[in-house]
Amino acid sequence: MLLATDALVAGVDADLRLTGLADFGWKALAVNLSDLAAMGGQPGHAVVSVIGASVAQLEELYDGLLEASARFGCPIVGGDLSSGAELVVSVAVTGWVEGSPVLRSGARPGDSIWVTAPLGAAAAGLRLLRDQGSVAAGSELAKAHARPQPALAEGRAARLAGATAMVDVSDGFLADLSRIAESSGVGFQLSALPVARGATRDEALQGGDDYVLAFTMPPGSDPRPAFSRAGLRPPYAIGTCTEDPGERVFRGEPVAPQGWRHKM
Amino acid sequence: MLLATDALVAGVDADLRLTGLADFGWKALAVNLSDLAAMGGQPGHAVVSVIGASVAQLEELYDGLLEASARFGCPIVGGDLSSGAELVVSVAVTGWVEGSPVLRSGARPGDSIWVTAPLGAAAAGLRLLRDQGSVAAGSELAKAHARPQPALAEGRAARLAGATAMVDVSDGFLADLSRIAESSGVGFQLSALPVARGATRDEALQGGDDYVLAFTMPPGSDPRPAFSRAGLRPPYAIGTCTEDPGERVFRGEPVAPQGWRHKM
Repeated sequence: MLLATDALVAGVDADLRLTGLADFGWKALAVNLSDLAAMGGQPGHAVVSVIGASVAQLEELYDGLLEASARFGCPIVGGDLSSGAELVVSVAVTGWVEGSPVLRSGARPGDSIWVTAPLGAAAAGLRLLRDQGSVAAGSELAKAHARPQPALAEGRAARLAGATAMVDVSDGFLADLSRIAESSGVGFQLSALPVARGATRDEALQGGDDYVLAFTMPPGSDPRPAFSRAGLRPPYAIGTCTEDPGERVFRGEPVAPQGWRHKM
Repeated sequence: MLLATDALVAGVDADLRLTGLADFGWKALAVNLSDLAAMGGQPGHAVVSVIGASVAQLEELYDGLLEASARFGCPIVGGDLSSGAELVVSVAVTGWVEGSPVLRSGARPGDSIWVTAPLGAAAAGLRLLRDQGSVAAGSELAKAHARPQPALAEGRAARLAGATAMVDVSDGFLADLSRIAESSGVGFQLSALPVARGATRDEALQGGDDYVLAFTMPPGSDPRPAFSRAGLRPPYAIGTCTEDPGERVFRGEPVAPQGWRHKM
């Protein structure tokens, strides 16, 4: 049994001048499901607390919540409404995993590092929405920002393949990979990074909200057959875990997470 | 498996000039456990989202959260922190029940109505804190307001005794009993109401935050032996469910829930 929670605050976790309330509702559930995905788990049920929404706002929010609920098979079984000055949507989800969940703490020096998809799309989408407004709204990049997809099938495949540690890219790729490094007591050397079409290298390294999974594998272990068996695109090998817990290297150069702070 | 969520907003659900942040944290978990109690369930685990707290505030909040967690046997297994303009604590809890949970919808005309304890203490405590400030802080009534106790053992006893419907008194006794009436399609006639020492009749009828349980029993069924077996004080028989779903009568007079709106 898994249990996760994540709260989104309007103006902090989403700029409602750029994306809609239905997107906000979708995201509130999707980010929680992404927490399950990062453990290799599957969704159970969700409960939702909404604070500071008018009746009209609540309807729009729930449009997106229910779309995500149907799309990812996670029924919303309860909730709570409160008044408040600020719009907040707090979701908690149960989930389950056959066997053991993948933690952040299991990476060892010599483990290979993988990501399930190219990075930076959500950050590029946010940039386009800011620069071009509604002109950009229909683009794939804007959708990556507005309607993140929890990588549930990928997380399960990585777990079945024997992943030693896993995290979802929510705060920024380097920041989130650093969480594995800190929890596991390893460093990392990255040799490559797949960048989403239309995104910059910096958006891929530092941008958040992609909800791509990053995971580590024991030396010599290849996760691609498990992904293939599940009908998924192969993950990308991007580097290696190292002995020095302070090491953060990308293509021979030291790098530091800049902290995509969810600030809009 | 049960899953419940409740969010508390500072200034709405608690006046932090009257009670402390540790009390706020305690209450945030306790009200969720009370939701489980009202189904006859027992606590599993909790996750906590905190929005808009400073580090110092967070420590105090968690003092109370962890006290309640230890007191009621509900480990906090995860959480989430967000920035925000307003202090919000959103908790979700899992729980479990052997057999079927008690719902609000199972009351039938002729069922007897019971409460697990005298009512009005929390509302009286709030009144004392407002009128007398810190002078009142140590009193039993002020504690009933600041540190509500989820009636977990009582809810279990009522379920084992065969309760047909149950609710916890959070928004006000008449308002919460009306939820059973609405969900079950019954009315009610109340002949008695135990009032907490120091509380007024109106505080008992309309005041919220008592977290006493109200439940219904099939005609002729007595819940008191089950409470006695569990080492609990006997519940109070206070009235009967009636055929007319609009009926709300206390000692022969129509009454209406005034809606204790959690407004401080």
